[in-house]
Amino acid sequence: MQTIKKIDAAALRGFTEAAFKAYGFAPEEAEQITDVLMAADLCGVDTHGSQRLDMYRKNIAGGFVRIGAKPETVFETPVSAVVDGHAAMGQLVSRYAMQLAIDKAKQSGIGMVSVRNSNHYGIAAYYSSMAASQGLVGISMTNSFPIVVPTYGRSPMMGTNPIAVAIPADPLDFSLDAATSVVAFGKPEVYNKKGIPVPLGWAINSQGVDETDPQIIVECVRQGLGGGMYPLGGSSELFGSHKGYGYAVLVEFFAASLSQGVTSNHTMKNGSAGICHYFSAFNPEIFGDAQAIRRHFSAYLQELRESEKAAGQERIYIHGEKEAECSRERKTGGIPILPKTLDEMRRLAEELGLPFEW
Amino acid sequence: MQTIKKIDAAALRGFTEAAFKAYGFAPEEAEQITDVLMAADLCGVDTHGSQRLDMYRKNIAGGFVRIGAKPETVFETPVSAVVDGHAAMGQLVSRYAMQLAIDKAKQSGIGMVSVRNSNHYGIAAYYSSMAASQGLVGISMTNSFPIVVPTYGRSPMMGTNPIAVAIPADPLDFSLDAATSVVAFGKPEVYNKKGIPVPLGWAINSQGVDETDPQIIVECVRQGLGGGMYPLGGSSELFGSHKGYGYAVLVEFFAASLSQGVTSNHTMKNGSAGICHYFSAFNPEIFGDAQAIRRHFSAYLQELRESEKAAGQERIYIHGEKEAECSRERKTGGIPILPKTLDEMRRLAEELGLPFEW
Repeated sequence: MQTIKKIDAAALRGFTEAAFKAYGFAPEEAEQITDVLMAADLCGVDTHGSQRLDMYRKNIAGGFVRIGAKPETVFETPVSAVVDGHAAMGQLVSRYAMQLAIDKAKQSGIGMVSVRNSNHYGIAAYYSSMAASQGLVGISMTNSFPIVVPTYGRSPMMGTNPIAVAIPADPLDFSLDAATSVVAFGKPEVYNKKGIPVPLGWAINSQGVDETDPQIIVECVRQGLGGGMYPLGGSSELFGSHKGYGYAVLVEFFAASLSQGVTSNHTMKNGSAGICHYFSAFNPEIFGDAQAIRRHFSAYLQELRESEKAAGQERIYIHGEKEAECSRERKTGGIPILPKTLDEMRRLAEELGLPFEW
Repeated sequence: MQTIKKIDAAALRGFTEAAFKAYGFAPEEAEQITDVLMAADLCGVDTHGSQRLDMYRKNIAGGFVRIGAKPETVFETPVSAVVDGHAAMGQLVSRYAMQLAIDKAKQSGIGMVSVRNSNHYGIAAYYSSMAASQGLVGISMTNSFPIVVPTYGRSPMMGTNPIAVAIPADPLDFSLDAATSVVAFGKPEVYNKKGIPVPLGWAINSQGVDETDPQIIVECVRQGLGGGMYPLGGSSELFGSHKGYGYAVLVEFFAASLSQGVTSNHTMKNGSAGICHYFSAFNPEIFGDAQAIRRHFSAYLQELRESEKAAGQERIYIHGEKEAECSRERKTGGIPILPKTLDEMRRLAEELGLPFEW
């Protein structure tokens, strides 16, 4: 049984920011990147937080992430734009692109921005929430390295391709952030660390057969051996596999085709990540009274919360509630970090010459 | 074993059009409604085609559908509009609203139209395809009478809430049309007619427990007893139930909240259907060279088709292919109609005084 240490949120933020400065980023860049990672740490999406410090370092060392590169708007209209990330850090590219979508939404009612040539951007909901916190509806999607097979296929042709949508509401914004795969890739990784089989219906192996051994699944995907995760809906049309597959293809279209970037199956090749994103924001005022729309939607969410429960269940959640509650708790109670991750951070601190107090 | 008669497509179109004229619709209205139903009959979505003639008649008799009513644009900007359907036939309201979205897309790059106070609109993909056939990306969604429970709930609070997206591509447009429930409600209806249990993970009964008896499921939903279909992803978060639930809530927001209409749990009450839709179209040119985008996306779809197959599988489908192939076949070979549906049509023909040759 491992004891899991809890680290003070502000201290972890300080350490993460210092690490990115040590990697070579300007202070304001390090602060912006850290803010995205800390949002994941706080809301409980540990796979996308500060434990990725080492992954980002490897991506910089491998030439996938270019220090000093700046995203550039290469095409635009009053309602849309294409951004070239120039291989900059994904969080920097994405904050720039979402801000562009927000500015256009404020000016023209809606802004749609497709992004090519970027990198891993962290949690999708960070960007959709940027819009919602300003009273706008926000959408964020990204492709990724190839992980997910099409229905009846066995080669990973899509990423986990999350779609995040944030909608202003009371008492809390609605915030959906979901991989279009049956589960995110972090799930079999966690099962693998725990040494327990994954449920039938999560993944397929390189022979094209259902696989429950998480080690095989993780190796198949990491080493590109064939096999991967199923789309949302599982292995066949019986439970709607073609739907998750369809949503994943939509993400490829919005992120990669509209920007003329590369689809997931062509990412991380020849020294280039090529990750593509899509961001959109619109002002509810283009449909009338924004406050009335907000009240209407909030009232419906309250009806959902109060509707009758399934046997043995005590609560119906609204998307974003669990994350908001976790975030409140961790802001005061600290962020739990696994011993293995803590060891990684300690080594990193030594190499970078940073103080490390845990 | 029933023998299933195949009816010539043009003859079925003629009969359906004549029936809607007999219901009291103007000739051009009858033609427009019929075109939507025939699209479903041709592409194999039999539950949304001419076999619904009787359902529409009941909706007219019950006062839900108002003959002679016209949809009205009650709010608009260059990129958006709200349409009040005034309880007109769903197909007429929806063609009007999608055309408005298309016109705005041609003028402003994008058009987004939220619709309240409409009726059952047939297949979602009809409207998204209206946009794609003109080189635009098209989106269509609708809520419906309450069928689907939220994750961990047992009261149907959402409709099956399909999302359809059509994207111009070669040799065939991509056309996703999927209920955000694990399966459409037509599926347990068909299992019920066949007298076989549905798979575990499709539905929950009024006691809040997994249910496999299709008769109980259909009765629960039709009579509003509690219980209903699960969202895409099934009963729990293990396979992503919260994702399908989230997509269904998005449809309620776009269709019902933006238009200030009613969410699915408030439809079909007090003599009013209140069904809400959402339509959007955008011109790929707002992201650059539309032909280059089309080529990029078509090439990716071809890679998907050609990617390696799962054990025992011979083909990876692109969304819309099955329907296009079925449509080609049925245009020449006729449309299969179940004996029970044929009997219904015969009775309808007698009552309306229409010739009926089958």
